[in-house]
Amino acid sequence: MSTRRYAFGRVDEATHPDSMRATLAEFVSTLIFVFAGEGSILALDNIYRDSGSSAGELVTIALAHAFALFAAVAASMHVSGGHVNPAVTFGALLGGRISVLRAVYYWIAQILGAIVAALLLRLVTAGMRPAAFHAGPGVTAIHGLIFEIVMTFGLMYTVYATAIDPKRGTNGALAPLAIGLIVGANILVAGPFDGGCMNPARAFGPALVGWRWRNHWIYWVGPLIGSGLAALIYEYIVIPIEPPHAHQPLAPEDY
Amino acid sequence: MSTRRYAFGRVDEATHPDSMRATLAEFVSTLIFVFAGEGSILALDNIYRDSGSSAGELVTIALAHAFALFAAVAASMHVSGGHVNPAVTFGALLGGRISVLRAVYYWIAQILGAIVAALLLRLVTAGMRPAAFHAGPGVTAIHGLIFEIVMTFGLMYTVYATAIDPKRGTNGALAPLAIGLIVGANILVAGPFDGGCMNPARAFGPALVGWRWRNHWIYWVGPLIGSGLAALIYEYIVIPIEPPHAHQPLAPEDY
Amino acid sequence: MSTRRYAFGRVDEATHPDSMRATLAEFVSTLIFVFAGEGSILALDNIYRDSGSSAGELVTIALAHAFALFAAVAASMHVSGGHVNPAVTFGALLGGRISVLRAVYYWIAQILGAIVAALLLRLVTAGMRPAAFHAGPGVTAIHGLIFEIVMTFGLMYTVYATAIDPKRGTNGALAPLAIGLIVGANILVAGPFDGGCMNPARAFGPALVGWRWRNHWIYWVGPLIGSGLAALIYEYIVIPIEPPHAHQPLAPEDY
Amino acid sequence: MSTRRYAFGRVDEATHPDSMRATLAEFVSTLIFVFAGEGSILALDNIYRDSGSSAGELVTIALAHAFALFAAVAASMHVSGGHVNPAVTFGALLGGRISVLRAVYYWIAQILGAIVAALLLRLVTAGMRPAAFHAGPGVTAIHGLIFEIVMTFGLMYTVYATAIDPKRGTNGALAPLAIGLIVGANILVAGPFDGGCMNPARAFGPALVGWRWRNHWIYWVGPLIGSGLAALIYEYIVIPIEPPHAHQPLAPEDY
Repeated sequence: MSTRRYAFGRVDEATHPDSMRATLAEFVSTLIFVFAGEGSILALDNIYRDSGSSAGELVTIALAHAFALFAAVAASMHVSGGHVNPAVTFGALLGGRISVLRAVYYWIAQILGAIVAALLLRLVTAGMRPAAFHAGPGVTAIHGLIFEIVMTFGLMYTVYATAIDPKRGTNGALAPLAIGLIVGANILVAGPFDGGCMNPARAFGPALVGWRWRNHWIYWVGPLIGSGLAALIYEYIVIPIEPPHAHQPLAPEDY
Repeated sequence: MSTRRYAFGRVDEATHPDSMRATLAEFVSTLIFVFAGEGSILALDNIYRDSGSSAGELVTIALAHAFALFAAVAASMHVSGGHVNPAVTFGALLGGRISVLRAVYYWIAQILGAIVAALLLRLVTAGMRPAAFHAGPGVTAIHGLIFEIVMTFGLMYTVYATAIDPKRGTNGALAPLAIGLIVGANILVAGPFDGGCMNPARAFGPALVGWRWRNHWIYWVGPLIGSGLAALIYEYIVIPIEPPHAHQPLAPEDY
Repeated sequence: MSTRRYAFGRVDEATHPDSMRATLAEFVSTLIFVFAGEGSILALDNIYRDSGSSAGELVTIALAHAFALFAAVAASMHVSGGHVNPAVTFGALLGGRISVLRAVYYWIAQILGAIVAALLLRLVTAGMRPAAFHAGPGVTAIHGLIFEIVMTFGLMYTVYATAIDPKRGTNGALAPLAIGLIVGANILVAGPFDGGCMNPARAFGPALVGWRWRNHWIYWVGPLIGSGLAALIYEYIVIPIEPPHAHQPLAPEDY
Repeated sequence: MSTRRYAFGRVDEATHPDSMRATLAEFVSTLIFVFAGEGSILALDNIYRDSGSSAGELVTIALAHAFALFAAVAASMHVSGGHVNPAVTFGALLGGRISVLRAVYYWIAQILGAIVAALLLRLVTAGMRPAAFHAGPGVTAIHGLIFEIVMTFGLMYTVYATAIDPKRGTNGALAPLAIGLIVGANILVAGPFDGGCMNPARAFGPALVGWRWRNHWIYWVGPLIGSGLAALIYEYIVIPIEPPHAHQPLAPEDY
């Protein structure tokens, strides 16, 4: 896992081409993800003037998020680590897998990508107002908050196990697929309750462009808590302490 | 396939960090899986007050289980072998691929993970009662039992062929994807009949928290029989006897 | 691609353990596939007494076939080559990738697997009569036949390119996934027309157990023609003639 | 990434067997993709005489495109690079990854493949008129054009990052899956607006056979602009300048 090298800041990191490329990759990937995720909700609003929920709509939204997040993570995995989510970046920072400077770059890129995606959606749909996340009828903010904590814990645990754990490679389809599909599965659960966000940038861009702020804080606080918990548990408990003989290169049979 | 080393108990296995980490991985992965699987049913209950079945609901539930199980197996594959299912652990035990001690650890972790997932669902949905599995209208317990045997046979055969067979690697997307998708496919079949469980922990957690025990035994007996049969057939008939020249390391062309 | 070695019959092939294991693998994998594919149609019959078609039903059936075929091919790929389909075996035979004896073994195993799957479905559903394939209203047998030829051409072309072409490995998720998903995609097209079969065993088992033979021949003739055409084109036109320097082992960069 | 060698024209390229095989692969793969993509729309027209939109129909069309494109790209990836799309070929040309001559061959093959697919669909459906793409009610051509630019930008960025970037391999499931799924996700967004094309050949074949040309130009201009932009940005900004020590072969750990 090559992000280990980001654990210690480098004096030239702020202007190093690698940092710039990684930041650009996070911007574009978050744009791609939020465009499809939020866009699928606008597409359903276009079909059903009365925006009720149904199993078909739930599947539409979950697949749009899962498929686009898979592509977005796959496209940025070997350039930036494929975070596409400020909460994932926060967890990687807590686990010592990324420097503070790089985390700040990523956060700015992710938020800008989400805002540009929401603006593009408003443009191409001739002014439809993004929906943004909020707790559904009968769901309190506290319930939504715990939902986000639990779901983002599961997401970040999956990210750590498949993409950050140094025993895993990062070049195959496993990590992006696990990340995209756990988000899709959780949306199938949380959709009718709090929407199923797990990603502050995904919530912020449409909220800003649609100017809808009800319950907005839970989509920041919940994901950051859940991701941080998962990162600390995986980093300090699950990742094996390397035994002495583990410094030899992996044998081909391990692939 | 590195689980071969578990075939013989080690004196220090009970307290070895490897066992503890693997047990923790089974706990978290089963939690993630049951949260999404059972949660998708509660989400549909929230949308449709009258919980009738439809193709759209069937797809929702199948995708939630398939996607979440893929992520759960992917996240635990290289730490614990990615069982996430007491029936799979039972089959691996029968096939000599895991020690009795480790199997007991896994069972406890899987059942606890499922219970915690069901409790969390009850919490975040403000008290919705988990649905649990039971034979549908016009389906007898015996029919449900045979359903579970046949489906779990298919699941465990797939697990053995893609994750345990020592000729296969365990680091790619193949095994978790095959395991997740065969469960999804079987739910598309058994959904309207007995629910399609194939996993005693998946059944037990929600049954306990929702206190619903009708037909509960078939979700233990069926999966254990089906998984045990598949393990014995694969271990003793399908796995090739290694010819003498097979001890040389695999050539790169084999990947 | 290790099936090349089957191109020439071996004197002991009929009783060699490898042949027996491969035949068993084809039997189990076809059973798993047909159980889920045909079973998903029975599940919908159970939900909708009036078995009309809808987009949701189409998606249900396509996903059940795609997911189960992926798992079935993944589970048998490195044992038998992952045919799970008499038409694929026929194409591999025409292309010289499998011996006549082994093809006959596979065909018997595939057909028996499909029959056992249909019998099990009849048992667990308390006697529901399998639906079998037939041309839909307003679709003539000739149209259905051309449908099967075109779709199975696409399937076998994909099989050849991803699983048989000696330049590709056979151990990853690519081949089973491409095979499963092209079948799923084609069912989304042909579902309301001729059902979308592409596999004589898939058609035969349920037809026998449900005793429904209308248009049955098109599900044998169509897939065999389509698969044969694709095999001949891929084997003799697309597969590159190895240039002299190609005998050196593949460099790691090629993976 | 072996397409680098196409960057400079070879004197014998026009008749070299490699070029012919790659052109054939593009023809067959585009045929497979357009048959399933356009065909799924005809299937829904067959079910719903009144061709209204619904979430279920949206999912049907998106999955048919995503699954078939995955298989089509997987089947041609190592023969032709897996373009299956004139806009992708255009981007690869701008980025210097393919010669002009080969690009012309690919374009002809892709367009012919799409026409043959549309003709076959007309044949097997007993004369149904292909639907072709057009801007939906209330969507102006300019909105559709921007939609296509944004979506094809995301598609080509994903193609570049997962299939062309020389730091990535091209033999696994990652690139075809990312390409197929981003197209599926974008169709879930654009379906009710402009249809979600991102591929001039996909639009042209059905438009010609169904003789429907309303808004047709936007499905050429939009994808070419979006793809060209993504190719230039990825090629000249994201692809790292190779440091001197990078000429050593990749170590096995990088896989």
